[in-house]
Amino acid sequence: MLIERSRKIFKAAGADRLYVTAPDLRFYLTGFASTDGCVVADESGTTFYTDARYLEAASAALSGSGIAVKQPPRGGYSALAEGAKTLATSLSRTTAAEYLELSAKAEKITDCTSAFEEAMSVKEECELAAIQKACEIADKAYLDTLGVFKEGMTENEAAAELEYRMRKYGASGTSFETIMAFGEGSSVPHHETGERKLKFGDIILIDFGCKWGGYCSDCTRTLLFGDDKKHEEFKKAYEKVLEAHFAAKQKITCGMTGREADETARCVLREAGLDKYFTHSLGHGIGINIHEYPYLSPRSTNILKDGMVFSDEPGVYFEGDFGIRIEDSVCLEGGKVRSLTNTDKKLLIL
Amino acid sequence: MLIERSRKIFKAAGADRLYVTAPDLRFYLTGFASTDGCVVADESGTTFYTDARYLEAASAALSGSGIAVKQPPRGGYSALAEGAKTLATSLSRTTAAEYLELSAKAEKITDCTSAFEEAMSVKEECELAAIQKACEIADKAYLDTLGVFKEGMTENEAAAELEYRMRKYGASGTSFETIMAFGEGSSVPHHETGERKLKFGDIILIDFGCKWGGYCSDCTRTLLFGDDKKHEEFKKAYEKVLEAHFAAKQKITCGMTGREADETARCVLREAGLDKYFTHSLGHGIGINIHEYPYLSPRSTNILKDGMVFSDEPGVYFEGDFGIRIEDSVCLEGGKVRSLTNTDKKLLIL
Repeated sequence: MLIERSRKIFKAAGADRLYVTAPDLRFYLTGFASTDGCVVADESGTTFYTDARYLEAASAALSGSGIAVKQPPRGGYSALAEGAKTLATSLSRTTAAEYLELSAKAEKITDCTSAFEEAMSVKEECELAAIQKACEIADKAYLDTLGVFKEGMTENEAAAELEYRMRKYGASGTSFETIMAFGEGSSVPHHETGERKLKFGDIILIDFGCKWGGYCSDCTRTLLFGDDKKHEEFKKAYEKVLEAHFAAKQKITCGMTGREADETARCVLREAGLDKYFTHSLGHGIGINIHEYPYLSPRSTNILKDGMVFSDEPGVYFEGDFGIRIEDSVCLEGGKVRSLTNTDKKLLIL
Repeated sequence: MLIERSRKIFKAAGADRLYVTAPDLRFYLTGFASTDGCVVADESGTTFYTDARYLEAASAALSGSGIAVKQPPRGGYSALAEGAKTLATSLSRTTAAEYLELSAKAEKITDCTSAFEEAMSVKEECELAAIQKACEIADKAYLDTLGVFKEGMTENEAAAELEYRMRKYGASGTSFETIMAFGEGSSVPHHETGERKLKFGDIILIDFGCKWGGYCSDCTRTLLFGDDKKHEEFKKAYEKVLEAHFAAKQKITCGMTGREADETARCVLREAGLDKYFTHSLGHGIGINIHEYPYLSPRSTNILKDGMVFSDEPGVYFEGDFGIRIEDSVCLEGGKVRSLTNTDKKLLIL
């Protein structure tokens, strides 16, 4: 039940009032997307305040949920902090300006970011279903797009084709800016998609995701546009990255720290002498936000639990030459990793 | 010159150090897009700090600009506040968490939001050119999309077609979630694009924009998908909204307040007895962000100046029945309004 979300966060926060204006956190608590609003929860219940534009739609959406819907108070949302002894809000999702207003109204302010992070990281069935749907749309769009690559096409054009298909299959948009990298562009982990044209023998690295029902997908594939027989080193590295990707899927389990999870893949690349080219972390939580708790990195102490959704994305980057990343969105179920993106990861030569 | 931007903000802020981590403000000061970074400016100059992923690209992009590029300090960006007597930062673009870190390091913190708002609202030539380009792409994509509307098509499918064309013509993405509203959906100013299918005689309201070079476009058109002769009231209201739209273009000039500008269109609708259906403000500034300073609304005291870019978007909404909005992105040049989006606004019947 939706109302359990705010009850849980309210209790975990140890305050007499919970105050939330950040769009992603509001959406988590209400399931209602809007550019404006505030959720207030206390012992007596949960109320969603939102302006005239959204009032009717929000009332309809939250009817029977136990969450009341009301118009904002005259003094603006911060007036809702008035009289609170301890007001819980997420300090990393609240602006300094709003914090100063709240500070003048509540006796004390406490941070509830970690309560949100932990609650949001373990997905309910309906949340997992939304992510699964986003992943299926992305998979289908990717497979369809494979047929449109042709020599001379720009990265932007190829990205447009992929995004078009995700949208057409029901996505509300992309979950982040598509990375479409041709050739040497693949060696930059955060390559900016541009006007580089596709040539025979190019590596194609595609990092893409879409949103469905407010939730994100995330997937990366690396392939070859024709084999000009100059890719021996690439092919060897590809096999190792794939091995690292699968090692993570096999070994990651509940109770592991983010560091231990990262190590399941990193050790494979280390044994192959490739770990110095694996310049980022193995993964990140995925949900309403494309990057969220937990983090699977060499320094992460986050504990993995059943119901968490995260990326498994080892990669290696040879500056100015080429890069490889193989990523699936996955979830932990019964202590085992289940993949949510499912297109083939065997090296594809178009 | 790029470096003049940080010099100007630094001077206007009246502090001994300027500290900026917000992505949009960093992009304004450096012209370099990244998910991570910090700009620090003081009497001695401007430095852009960014992590290893962006270091090389940022150094290349800012070479010769007078802006130094450096790696982040060990203690994280907030360490750059150490020793400042008065540190200027944008309190509405800084999180409460970061503010508390900065407060522990600088003697005093001052807000420079309004210095940014005012500087960013008056566009330089290169900024105006980027917005113009985004507007041209959006115009071209819109005209192309008119040919694909057909009975039974969903709002999502139609939005996908439009977004695809904007992307294909060079946009990096949309500047906000496309509103594609069929029939009665047009009566909701912030309609959520969905699975409603297009029927003969439907009103189509499209509010759309794209990004190019980091800058946004914004445009709305309302049209008819076939004329089932039941639209007399709609057609009359359309003419009045169009009249209001043109009145604003004709009368808005430098030195006006946002309130006065809003009134140029609102009075036309008032005379026609339609002002109670005009439930939002006339316009908003457009630039790196889709909504920015200045605001053209009944309560705005913002002063309009040459070089500002904003929307002219009167609309009327008859709940559950239909809505009309006609919007162009415009700029103020030599005291006159020039339209940046330029597709026909005469009522189109497909």
